[in-house]
Amino acid sequence: MKNIMIAQSGGPTAAINTSLAGLLDAAFESDQVGEVYGGIHGIQGIIEGNVISLTERLKGKKDKLDKLYYTPDMYLRTCRYKLKKPEDDSTDYEKVLETFKKYDIDIFLYIGGNDSMDTVARMSEFVKARGEDIKVVGVPKTVDNDLVEIDHTPGFGSAAKYVATSVREIMLDTCIYPYANVAIVEIMGRDAGWLTAAASLSAPDGCSARPLVYLPESAFDEDKFIEKVNEGIKSHGYVVVAVSEGIRDKDGNYISASETKLDKFGHPQLSGTGSVLVSLVKERIGCKVRGIELATAQRSAGHCASATDLAESFKLGQNACRYALEGKTGVMACLKRTSNKPYETEFSAADVLNIANKVKGVPAEWIDEENAFVTQEMIDYLTPLIQGETEVTYKNGLPDYLFEEV
Amino acid sequence: MKNIMIAQSGGPTAAINTSLAGLLDAAFESDQVGEVYGGIHGIQGIIEGNVISLTERLKGKKDKLDKLYYTPDMYLRTCRYKLKKPEDDSTDYEKVLETFKKYDIDIFLYIGGNDSMDTVARMSEFVKARGEDIKVVGVPKTVDNDLVEIDHTPGFGSAAKYVATSVREIMLDTCIYPYANVAIVEIMGRDAGWLTAAASLSAPDGCSARPLVYLPESAFDEDKFIEKVNEGIKSHGYVVVAVSEGIRDKDGNYISASETKLDKFGHPQLSGTGSVLVSLVKERIGCKVRGIELATAQRSAGHCASATDLAESFKLGQNACRYALEGKTGVMACLKRTSNKPYETEFSAADVLNIANKVKGVPAEWIDEENAFVTQEMIDYLTPLIQGETEVTYKNGLPDYLFEEV
Repeated sequence: MKNIMIAQSGGPTAAINTSLAGLLDAAFESDQVGEVYGGIHGIQGIIEGNVISLTERLKGKKDKLDKLYYTPDMYLRTCRYKLKKPEDDSTDYEKVLETFKKYDIDIFLYIGGNDSMDTVARMSEFVKARGEDIKVVGVPKTVDNDLVEIDHTPGFGSAAKYVATSVREIMLDTCIYPYANVAIVEIMGRDAGWLTAAASLSAPDGCSARPLVYLPESAFDEDKFIEKVNEGIKSHGYVVVAVSEGIRDKDGNYISASETKLDKFGHPQLSGTGSVLVSLVKERIGCKVRGIELATAQRSAGHCASATDLAESFKLGQNACRYALEGKTGVMACLKRTSNKPYETEFSAADVLNIANKVKGVPAEWIDEENAFVTQEMIDYLTPLIQGETEVTYKNGLPDYLFEEV
Repeated sequence: MKNIMIAQSGGPTAAINTSLAGLLDAAFESDQVGEVYGGIHGIQGIIEGNVISLTERLKGKKDKLDKLYYTPDMYLRTCRYKLKKPEDDSTDYEKVLETFKKYDIDIFLYIGGNDSMDTVARMSEFVKARGEDIKVVGVPKTVDNDLVEIDHTPGFGSAAKYVATSVREIMLDTCIYPYANVAIVEIMGRDAGWLTAAASLSAPDGCSARPLVYLPESAFDEDKFIEKVNEGIKSHGYVVVAVSEGIRDKDGNYISASETKLDKFGHPQLSGTGSVLVSLVKERIGCKVRGIELATAQRSAGHCASATDLAESFKLGQNACRYALEGKTGVMACLKRTSNKPYETEFSAADVLNIANKVKGVPAEWIDEENAFVTQEMIDYLTPLIQGETEVTYKNGLPDYLFEEV
């Protein structure tokens, strides 16, 4: 019988617990699996020995597992902890191995994004080098949709559905005034504009206006921006702008540069891009303008999750567990799109070394820079991912999410 | 046969089109009604003669009327236009009357908040004084819930449901880190804390933490606030703060005072209250803290509307039309709560002179200042209003809202 350790890492999504539910589904169903443990706060918790029994908490508890499926954020909590190279300092790796030995772990399943896949790669190499028969498999997640190899990441479709829905509602909220009115919506996405691109789906039927869409993959030009906003005001009286937090000018400087700080991984932490554009419109056009930051809602809005996203996230979880049980290691559960219309996908395992620390941006040919929009290819890519509404159980008027203290 | 003019005014809600759908339902059903017109951009549009035929656009169009029921914001667009006292300057009134005569209007139905009820009162008095047999009836709406006479306002229940849902999702998003983490959620409400109070419903089952709730009706004390946040960090490791944009210190100064501007009605326009608290936590506690402004989503989130709110908003619309057809004028469609458990209401017409320009704040005895929370009375008051989920039709993964150019 094989014992399993699961942990979650990085920023939350609406689908990361769905993948956990998928992992648990496959693990609890399998007659090869003994105990299933959860590391609290990702790899950092495993280093510190912060472990709970998921078998005890969740096995056979259909009611809880059903809720876990649609509960956003992270049942096992998170960390943002970067392992050093083992050749430089192997202390953390030794501690992880100690925890694994304590619980007699045969399989380690890690749900996370780019940085977490780096952890999967390193842990998998480390245990192999130490001659330990421990399989390490990753499950992808990130609202940024910036992982390579996989067609799109779990959590992205739900975030995209929330962004497209919200920007549609913001359009309805912005078009109603008897004077020029501009709304600037700042959307997550440091280096990749996928989530911002979802705003291209927002215009409701019957509406001749569409949002202006600015992605970090395309150099931001202040004059052209003001020109587009003026054009929109002239033709419709209102303009909604969807802008990625990470937009840069032609020299690569962040538009929100004055407020740039680096996070622990050396990534710039941006905020205020929307405010900069609000000030620009105020100064150069002088009309009414409002800044809206979609903030954490875009990654945590379980009440608005994409059914397609959650179904895929669940299956990727199931698959990851099965890959590990089949003896695979150093891989990530992956999916490829084989057809757009009808939407069809194929699931497989991908070598995590091809994924860790790489970033997939929006291809230049999917950006319609001239019109501050995206091309039909992008719309065809995005549309299937937001299909279907998730059946969330409501209790007393609110989504009945699974919450447990740890 | 009586001709009807309808218009909408003030800030949007998720239920203001639902009331329009109710008005139209009663009007299209009645054999006393001839043509139904819509004034575009509220009273300002009627002054300018900006009128469309709602009979042509919507009568017998079940598909459109069904969508209108759940479409947020304002089909007829809006204005924020304050009529002068007719004794000072009657120009606007004369122009309104001119438009009414042009379309042979017998009934004017105005959907709006506090300021709009002032317009209803004044227009009703003006036409009476001029000996015109035109009935003027108001339909309430405002996410602020600050109208007197009525138990709660259309649009409030949906906004409260959105706030409670979002703050629940923010709690799940905030509790996951292995270090102290604070989220400050800024919620609409200039003078009345009703909407912020809805965050008191947010803690999910199984969660021992609850949000700290700060309303404008209670003096904000910086030291006590920091003490409560520190307490929350000590006991749970994270704190979510729900704060009304309009909080003031004991001397009545807005916490966001440095950024206060006045709008056209002389109301202070606030923003940045959340940012002020974020800075406070950074400076005095030094932990991770994030500011989240729920912004327009709280009033426009049709995808998350309360079924109870929409049903009541529809009925208030129907009633307003019927009151006018019965010959009432200078009244607002009203509802009183007769029982909390089970939730029961009674509908009636209220004299608009008792409503216009008055504000209903949260009663002091419903605020638990000591614990930065609300009392059980407030929870019992709020709970029925967010019950039920609205069946929104989705098309291509997004809410299929009714949008028409005007």
